[in-house]
Amino acid sequence: MNEFELIRRYFRRHTDAPASVVVGVGDDAAVIAHTPGCETVVSVDSVIAGRHVPLICSGEGFAQRLLARGVSDLAAMGATPRYLLLSLTLPNFDSGWVDPFAERFHQLAVQWGLHLIGGDTTRGPLSAQVTVIGELPAGSALRRGGARAGDVVWMVGEPLGGARAYLDVLDGSVPDHPVWSARYWHPNPLIAEGQALREQATACIDVSDGLCQDLMHVLEAAVEPLVAELYTDAVPIAADVIEVFGAERALEYALTGGDEYCLLCTLPTGVTPSVPAEAIGELVTAETPGLRLDGEALPSDWQLGWDHSR
Amino acid sequence: MNEFELIRRYFRRHTDAPASVVVGVGDDAAVIAHTPGCETVVSVDSVIAGRHVPLICSGEGFAQRLLARGVSDLAAMGATPRYLLLSLTLPNFDSGWVDPFAERFHQLAVQWGLHLIGGDTTRGPLSAQVTVIGELPAGSALRRGGARAGDVVWMVGEPLGGARAYLDVLDGSVPDHPVWSARYWHPNPLIAEGQALREQATACIDVSDGLCQDLMHVLEAAVEPLVAELYTDAVPIAADVIEVFGAERALEYALTGGDEYCLLCTLPTGVTPSVPAEAIGELVTAETPGLRLDGEALPSDWQLGWDHSR
Repeated sequence: MNEFELIRRYFRRHTDAPASVVVGVGDDAAVIAHTPGCETVVSVDSVIAGRHVPLICSGEGFAQRLLARGVSDLAAMGATPRYLLLSLTLPNFDSGWVDPFAERFHQLAVQWGLHLIGGDTTRGPLSAQVTVIGELPAGSALRRGGARAGDVVWMVGEPLGGARAYLDVLDGSVPDHPVWSARYWHPNPLIAEGQALREQATACIDVSDGLCQDLMHVLEAAVEPLVAELYTDAVPIAADVIEVFGAERALEYALTGGDEYCLLCTLPTGVTPSVPAEAIGELVTAETPGLRLDGEALPSDWQLGWDHSR
Repeated sequence: MNEFELIRRYFRRHTDAPASVVVGVGDDAAVIAHTPGCETVVSVDSVIAGRHVPLICSGEGFAQRLLARGVSDLAAMGATPRYLLLSLTLPNFDSGWVDPFAERFHQLAVQWGLHLIGGDTTRGPLSAQVTVIGELPAGSALRRGGARAGDVVWMVGEPLGGARAYLDVLDGSVPDHPVWSARYWHPNPLIAEGQALREQATACIDVSDGLCQDLMHVLEAAVEPLVAELYTDAVPIAADVIEVFGAERALEYALTGGDEYCLLCTLPTGVTPSVPAEAIGELVTAETPGLRLDGEALPSDWQLGWDHSR
C-alpha cells in the first residue's frame, strides 16, 4: 500500500467539515478561514532518517497516547480543540495495526472536537506527530508564567501514580494491572476542565513530564522567584499504587511519574476552582525557585520527572 | 543535554516576534491572534517508537530539506509563510550536528518569513517534522482541483533532473557533482512565484514526488477527466544531467524525480504567467485521467515518481 492509497483509505473520511475548513486533507496544505478577508494555511511534514524498529504497541494505544499528548497541551491553555494534522511513519503496512490505529484516532478526534485537515505518511521507524490547533477568546489563554506568591497549587484529575507504575509492568518487575494499563494507554485530556479554569487560574500546565518537573516549569516561568511548598497528605495517589509499592515509593511515583495528563494550576488564596480539584501546596517567595515537601527538600534520590530527550 | 536545555539553547531565540504572536516557544502550545476576539492555539507533538539509526547527513542539509518541504507546500497554495513549529528527534546530542542544523534552520526561517512559535524534542531515530502556518487573502488559495480542458501546463523553477541525479551520487554509481548536491540538499521553495500565480493559475502543486506523479494528482483532483499531453522538447532539463546520463535517462529523471520543489501549474490558454515559466503541455478531455508524452503512453519501465511510504 503506497502513501496515496494509505491517505485515501484511512485519512480522507467524508465527515462533515466545519464551514471554516476551506481546504482539508488532500492538497499541499490545509486552509482555514479566520479573520474576514484572511485565511490560515497549515501543513505538517516530516523527514525520516533510517528504516527499522518493531511495532511495539497496539494501534489503539499508540493513537490515544499520541492524540492525548497534543490535546492535553490545548487543555492546559484552556483552548477549544478545533483542527488536527497527522504525520505518520510506519515501518511497513500492517492493516492489523493500522486499522485499529485509524479507528481509535478518528473516534477520539470526534470525541475531543478535532477535525483532521491534513498530514503526511512516510515509511520508516514507527513514529507519529500530531499538530493540534485550537481556539480561544482573545487574551484568555492559561499561561505558565502567571503564578504569584500566596497562590495555592491545585491538581485537577484522577489520583496519580498509575501511569508510572505501569512502566514497572512494561519492564516485567510487577504483574500486569488493568487500571494502570488503561491509565497509560488511554489517557483523557481534561479539555472542559481547562476551559473552566480560564477565568480563575493564574498559571496552568499539564503533567506530561512529572508533577514536580512540570511544577518547576511553572516556577521558572513566574516573574518572581517562588518556592512551591507541597504537602504529602494532600497529594492524591491511586490506592492500588500505594498497595503494591508502599506509601513511600507511591509518593515518588505520583510526584515524578510522567504521562498523567492531569492539570496543575495555581489560584489566588481564597479562590476555589470551579472544577473538582485538590489543593496540594502553596507558593511562597524565595531566593531561587524550588520545591519542598512537608517543609523539607525533595528526597535526593528522586529522579525529577521524565525527560523525553533522555 | 536534556530536552529543556536543548530548547533553551537552540530554539528560544529572542528575535522580535510579530505582534500577533501572543504566546511563542516555551508554553504548552503557541497562541496566535487572528480574528479580533479570537485566538488560535497551535501545538505539535511526537511519539517515537524505538531508538537508533546513524546520523546520515549534515545538519545544514537536513534543516534545509526539512524546511523546504513544508514551505514549498505553502508556496504551492500561494500563501505567505508566517509561523513554524519544529518537532525534532535526535539519537543523541551531538553539537557538531545540532549547531549547524539550528543555525541553518533559523537562517532559513528568517529568509522565508517564518517565526518559530513552538515544537518539541525527543530522543530516538533521527527525524524531524515542521508544521508551517501561512496566510492568504480569503478565497485566493491555489488549489489542486481547478484544472480544466484546454488549460496549458506550466513549470516554474530551475531545469529539472539534478535532484534525481544526486540519488545516483549517493548510491555511488556516478561521481559527486556540486550542482546536483546543492539541488538536493539546498532546495529553495518558490514563495513569491506561488503568490504571483494566485490570480492566474487554475491549479497548482509543488513537485515533491516527481513531475508526472504530482501532475497526476492535479488530474485526479479535476472535476472532469483530463489527459495531460506533455512535450519532450518543452521540458526544461538540466544540461549537465543530459551530459552525464544521456537524453533518454535525463528525460526520465526530469519527469519522475522527486525533491525538485518547482511549481507545476495550469493556466487557461492565452494567459501568460507573470513569473518566468515554461509551457510543457496541455490538458485535453479524456475517458480517464492520464499522462501522454509526445502523443504516446509513458515508457512502461518508468517508475512514476517517488512514493515516500515505499
